[in-house]
Amino acid sequence: MPPHAVLISEVGPRDGLQSVKAVMPTAAKLAWINALHAAGLREIEVGSFVPASLLPQMADVADVVRHALTLPGLTVMALVPNLRGAEAALAAGVHKLSIPVSASEAHSLANVRKTRQHMVAEVARIVALRNAHAPHVHVEAGMSTAFGCTLQGDVPVDDVVALAAALVNAGVDEVGLSDTSGMANPTQVRHLFNRVRAEIGHRTGAAHLHNTRGLGLANCLAAWDVGVRTFDSSQGGLGGCPYAPGASGNVVTEDLVFMFEAMGVHTGVNLQALMAARPILQAGLPGEPLYGMTPLAGLPINWLGRATPHPTEQTQP
Amino acid sequence: MPPHAVLISEVGPRDGLQSVKAVMPTAAKLAWINALHAAGLREIEVGSFVPASLLPQMADVADVVRHALTLPGLTVMALVPNLRGAEAALAAGVHKLSIPVSASEAHSLANVRKTRQHMVAEVARIVALRNAHAPHVHVEAGMSTAFGCTLQGDVPVDDVVALAAALVNAGVDEVGLSDTSGMANPTQVRHLFNRVRAEIGHRTGAAHLHNTRGLGLANCLAAWDVGVRTFDSSQGGLGGCPYAPGASGNVVTEDLVFMFEAMGVHTGVNLQALMAARPILQAGLPGEPLYGMTPLAGLPINWLGRATPHPTEQTQP
Repeated sequence: MPPHAVLISEVGPRDGLQSVKAVMPTAAKLAWINALHAAGLREIEVGSFVPASLLPQMADVADVVRHALTLPGLTVMALVPNLRGAEAALAAGVHKLSIPVSASEAHSLANVRKTRQHMVAEVARIVALRNAHAPHVHVEAGMSTAFGCTLQGDVPVDDVVALAAALVNAGVDEVGLSDTSGMANPTQVRHLFNRVRAEIGHRTGAAHLHNTRGLGLANCLAAWDVGVRTFDSSQGGLGGCPYAPGASGNVVTEDLVFMFEAMGVHTGVNLQALMAARPILQAGLPGEPLYGMTPLAGLPINWLGRATPHPTEQTQP
Repeated sequence: MPPHAVLISEVGPRDGLQSVKAVMPTAAKLAWINALHAAGLREIEVGSFVPASLLPQMADVADVVRHALTLPGLTVMALVPNLRGAEAALAAGVHKLSIPVSASEAHSLANVRKTRQHMVAEVARIVALRNAHAPHVHVEAGMSTAFGCTLQGDVPVDDVVALAAALVNAGVDEVGLSDTSGMANPTQVRHLFNRVRAEIGHRTGAAHLHNTRGLGLANCLAAWDVGVRTFDSSQGGLGGCPYAPGASGNVVTEDLVFMFEAMGVHTGVNLQALMAARPILQAGLPGEPLYGMTPLAGLPINWLGRATPHPTEQTQP
């Protein structure tokens, strides 16, 4: 990743769609993912490998992965909560697994009925499976409630750092930090990423920050300031964590891309094309509220000169 | 201002109320200002001294000032666009004058039908009046369109720096920078405040940033990072600049206070009391949309331990 570039990891098709009540039809998912890819997004979390009885929104995940794998240059990521999910995801051919692990013991028990220690052991089993059958697949642990928990309140920094070390020890390629409950603030974001980086170095992964109390972009800026270069977000701010009561609101991809591009930080995403994906998302989820200020305000008058060229234009000779 | 404290300057009663079509009744204004003061806000821009024929929302400004002057510890600020407004504001007894001056020549001509040079001359006349009749009154110039203009596009940094120097030369106590059109980004905010501070030093004033494209708090964080300690915002995000087409949305006071307090930066504002002021504002402007995420999400479970004591509690022995 060049010093003035970031990877925007779009999590809407997973995090967003599993958080809403409606089930988006498969064809609508594929149309939306196509539009996200056409806008220049190059990493998309396309679904969760979980039992359809638990999350009917994700029943078609293998079909969605199969389609996404046809899109050139796209890293196809899926969430897997356990070894069984990882087996299915690897069989489907994903490029990257994301495993949620709670920093809060209370949240871990409520969310997956496992202690953190049991989750680390499960992660090690997933890594062993990956090593044996798909060594090219990237494994990321996403540490939820890293900045606070609606169940237990504060989450000690030392717990986060120790869990990050344990996950790296279990063999993951990177550990991201998630503000599941929207409790993070910029000072904390800088401190926590610095502490985790001091412990696990280049295996420090994505910032997954929420806009629950309006601080989403400020927290992304804080993470950028201390060297984070991968940011999770969802189009229209769709999603959040359904297991953390009162928590809602991923960072809005449109506003995040606007911020970085305006700062001169390359995202590879064309904002006009990204906004064109918004009605495609909405068509698949009629009536669902979408968030984001940039789509309402439009792009500023002086935008064209500094906008990233559309990816299809970049490939012209 | 201690190193870990900021002054939140509430501009809603001026910037907010002059931007909406409805005219808030005087009694409702006083009730809202009382509630803002009770929440701990210690600088409030209570109105504009402009002809009632132009802004009927501000026809009662002298009465509002008279009441605000009775609130202990409050700096009562008013906007004045010209010498005549300044005469009326000083007669009413305000503590602080705010004079808008556009960095963009196109915006200056459209907004007040004066060139920037003519506005600097007008500012000098206002300062002379202040010096002669009310030397204790503070004079601030608020430089609008400092980060870009919907009429002319980019505004050169050198124009902003030169105008800041000219305003200090004209005798103002401080020069704030306003993102009238919501075009600012964090890199630009840091650069521009650094450049202006290099030119006019401690006379560098408030950051007046908008949330037009969702970057309001990120831009405030960027300004804080480079030493800005006064921030304009409005409760519920009310207001913006009616003269800049498409522009809207002040930074939301509730979210701004939440960000700083969560960072451990003292605002003096009690968030629970601030949220209690919100229905009082709404009662004075029925049906007017209010913004802000913190009021919707509520305060996090771990908040109480870190919240600033309520101002009335601070005065207990």
